[in-house]
Amino acid sequence: MPTQHVQIVMSSHVNGAGRLFGGQLMEWIDVVAAVAARRHTRSDVTLAAVDALEFIAPVHMNDTVLLSADVTWTGRTSLEVCVETFVEHLTGRRQLVNRAYLVFVAVDDAGKPRQIPPLTVTTAAQRQEWQQAEVRRAHRLGQRQFGQSKAPGETDA
Amino acid sequence: MPTQHVQIVMSSHVNGAGRLFGGQLMEWIDVVAAVAARRHTRSDVTLAAVDALEFIAPVHMNDTVLLSADVTWTGRTSLEVCVETFVEHLTGRRQLVNRAYLVFVAVDDAGKPRQIPPLTVTTAAQRQEWQQAEVRRAHRLGQRQFGQSKAPGETDA
Amino acid sequence: MPTQHVQIVMSSHVNGAGRLFGGQLMEWIDVVAAVAARRHTRSDVTLAAVDALEFIAPVHMNDTVLLSADVTWTGRTSLEVCVETFVEHLTGRRQLVNRAYLVFVAVDDAGKPRQIPPLTVTTAAQRQEWQQAEVRRAHRLGQRQFGQSKAPGETDA
Amino acid sequence: MPTQHVQIVMSSHVNGAGRLFGGQLMEWIDVVAAVAARRHTRSDVTLAAVDALEFIAPVHMNDTVLLSADVTWTGRTSLEVCVETFVEHLTGRRQLVNRAYLVFVAVDDAGKPRQIPPLTVTTAAQRQEWQQAEVRRAHRLGQRQFGQSKAPGETDA
Amino acid sequence: MPTQHVQIVMSSHVNGAGRLFGGQLMEWIDVVAAVAARRHTRSDVTLAAVDALEFIAPVHMNDTVLLSADVTWTGRTSLEVCVETFVEHLTGRRQLVNRAYLVFVAVDDAGKPRQIPPLTVTTAAQRQEWQQAEVRRAHRLGQRQFGQSKAPGETDA
Amino acid sequence: MPTQHVQIVMSSHVNGAGRLFGGQLMEWIDVVAAVAARRHTRSDVTLAAVDALEFIAPVHMNDTVLLSADVTWTGRTSLEVCVETFVEHLTGRRQLVNRAYLVFVAVDDAGKPRQIPPLTVTTAAQRQEWQQAEVRRAHRLGQRQFGQSKAPGETDA
Repeated sequence: MPTQHVQIVMSSHVNGAGRLFGGQLMEWIDVVAAVAARRHTRSDVTLAAVDALEFIAPVHMNDTVLLSADVTWTGRTSLEVCVETFVEHLTGRRQLVNRAYLVFVAVDDAGKPRQIPPLTVTTAAQRQEWQQAEVRRAHRLGQRQFGQSKAPGETDA
Repeated sequence: MPTQHVQIVMSSHVNGAGRLFGGQLMEWIDVVAAVAARRHTRSDVTLAAVDALEFIAPVHMNDTVLLSADVTWTGRTSLEVCVETFVEHLTGRRQLVNRAYLVFVAVDDAGKPRQIPPLTVTTAAQRQEWQQAEVRRAHRLGQRQFGQSKAPGETDA
Repeated sequence: MPTQHVQIVMSSHVNGAGRLFGGQLMEWIDVVAAVAARRHTRSDVTLAAVDALEFIAPVHMNDTVLLSADVTWTGRTSLEVCVETFVEHLTGRRQLVNRAYLVFVAVDDAGKPRQIPPLTVTTAAQRQEWQQAEVRRAHRLGQRQFGQSKAPGETDA
Repeated sequence: MPTQHVQIVMSSHVNGAGRLFGGQLMEWIDVVAAVAARRHTRSDVTLAAVDALEFIAPVHMNDTVLLSADVTWTGRTSLEVCVETFVEHLTGRRQLVNRAYLVFVAVDDAGKPRQIPPLTVTTAAQRQEWQQAEVRRAHRLGQRQFGQSKAPGETDA
Repeated sequence: MPTQHVQIVMSSHVNGAGRLFGGQLMEWIDVVAAVAARRHTRSDVTLAAVDALEFIAPVHMNDTVLLSADVTWTGRTSLEVCVETFVEHLTGRRQLVNRAYLVFVAVDDAGKPRQIPPLTVTTAAQRQEWQQAEVRRAHRLGQRQFGQSKAPGETDA
Repeated sequence: MPTQHVQIVMSSHVNGAGRLFGGQLMEWIDVVAAVAARRHTRSDVTLAAVDALEFIAPVHMNDTVLLSADVTWTGRTSLEVCVETFVEHLTGRRQLVNRAYLVFVAVDDAGKPRQIPPLTVTTAAQRQEWQQAEVRRAHRLGQRQFGQSKAPGETDA
């Protein structure tokens, strides 16, 4: 069962153009993804990367918003969570407005990475998600290598 | 010259473990990137995607934080902005803690995409950023195709 | 299926004693209850009263919190929603920390009350909730009468 | 003398319909009631229950709001506070928009309940408030008994 | 009677050193001063200047804070408000921690300055405040003249 | 090089009249000034006074705002910082909307004042700022003396 979170878009959530501010949506996505990661790992988690986060349609004032998070991939100490955000119309129709993939690391009380239970993949949709997660992971590791030649983690920006 | 934004990490910015909350940092990144995009396009912009956002090191209470944004790639109506986040120690030393790439679309008053001026690339570092931006773009378009076969933008989640 | 909402308790949610601030919890309860009321009425709603809201156990920093809302009673244009709040331990155990009953009125675009579909009560637990809702309603109407003799809705406090 | 708190309703306080968000008002009520309880008990206090909270009229953007809190009942370690919320028009006229009753427990440094001074009731209005507080208390204790048969404080919701 | 506003200092109000953040206190001061100015002018007001704002002692987590505002000077369309901020100890003792002077202009619906009723000064303390307000006003007008030679209200910073 | 901070004015930043709320701007000014003071002193700092803060022009929804801070005066353990706030139009034009002077004290880990490096004044503009800072300082010390005869830092307000 997915981890769910509902919101109603209020004045304090919108930007100057009256649309849900991207930074506010990212805040909600982070929370619901972290709870999904805690539920799977039975452990505290820390956010390592956001791999892809796509704004498909705008969200407006007074809209009901539903965020729904599922674990899509597990490694030894890290896992990927997919969060889908929907606008829920009063008719009950749900419209996808954002899809995001976040990578968390499970940590013990000292903040050190700890091993996590593997995800049991059973459906074809889950298998497809897992394969795409591996592509994202390879892409992310590739990008990081580019970056490291340029920025050694400590610089005089 | 990069677009800059400073912060001091306060109680309301940290999670239960006393570290800067990922969702809060994403909010700051969105604002500084949007200003950099407005300065280049001389236009209003809307956030389309976050392509890669990597948490390299944690940020703690009372740290001085510097966010610095630069345009790295331009298309016909969209552009990519890189935001680097640093902890600035009292000694003046700056430590890279996050690097993020965001894609914005320039919009006119009716919210329709509008053409933008191209980025003038002069240094080797800028050329390398541009090439990596093209890789991220190809990867993003590829991922979207996967997604579309599965979720037609409107679904009964 | 209940309307659900998850949170992780952060620094900005706690009072000076390090416990979840009552006003913050009431804010979350209001949102999740309003979404449950919107889903049942397929209409916009406005909060009319909070009938009973009991703090059973404290909530601490970094706790995972789950709010779960269900409609318990319907009248012609108003309905009652029960919100139960749980702390969710990493082991998966859920501990009830708050139970609240809120009354909403369904409103049309002009802000006028509009008729709502009746709740279908099928289980014994639902019937018991309905009966207690009627007791709360009678008590509330009785209290209001007291009040009106004293405060005519407009006063020079 | 009542404990008072003024506010001006800003954009960040209103819901999608441009009216003061119920959850925001509850936050303000909690703070002003807690200060009234601290002033009477000369002790730290913790919120135990909200017994009745009725939204009599809506509050709009830019309204001046006045919250006024008084102790209405005292027990051995707990007390009830009434908070009345007014919209204050520029003419000086005050219109009652909300009345709430909150129950606090006085706590010592270890968080244990501690004895409090009794309220001195002198006027007829105060006596009437006290009597109604006893009705609310009896009703609350009755409701709790219902609840306990159903939810043993710890459950698998 | 002064315009009053109470707060309890929570986690979201303090800086990294555990003390009330200056910017947060300035926010509260602005609100309570604006209400005092509205009450005197029976009009909407806009903040024109903060003339002096002195942090006399720090404020800590869980402190009860009382802000108290009085009009100290009136001109034709502008007025000065003094806000004193106190920490209120559980014993009832009040300790002054901040004193601020703010200048507002009364505005009509079109945002144009409008005439205000004069302040009636009766006590020696009020007369002394009035005289000091005139000193602050002369000093402010003098400083502005300096500034204007340097920054013509519009510049290429 | 000045310390800079950019913002986009969103719904949560404006008052009921749709203009940037003075208290919100003061919060941003405090942060950017504190970072400028930390950079000069290489030390933690605490806000002692705001000497002059003038609202020259209003700021509206969706405006890009730039805050720019420079040290203008140094004493033995305290320093003054000037923050200028601009609205940045899409054309690139910058319009001054606020100028503020804040006084900070450098503090060591025990919160005691510590000596700071002197500011090196080289340009005529810097010399003029320094002289005006001395006038503000003399004025502030004079005002404080007035105040002390009236309010001994501890009172029964």
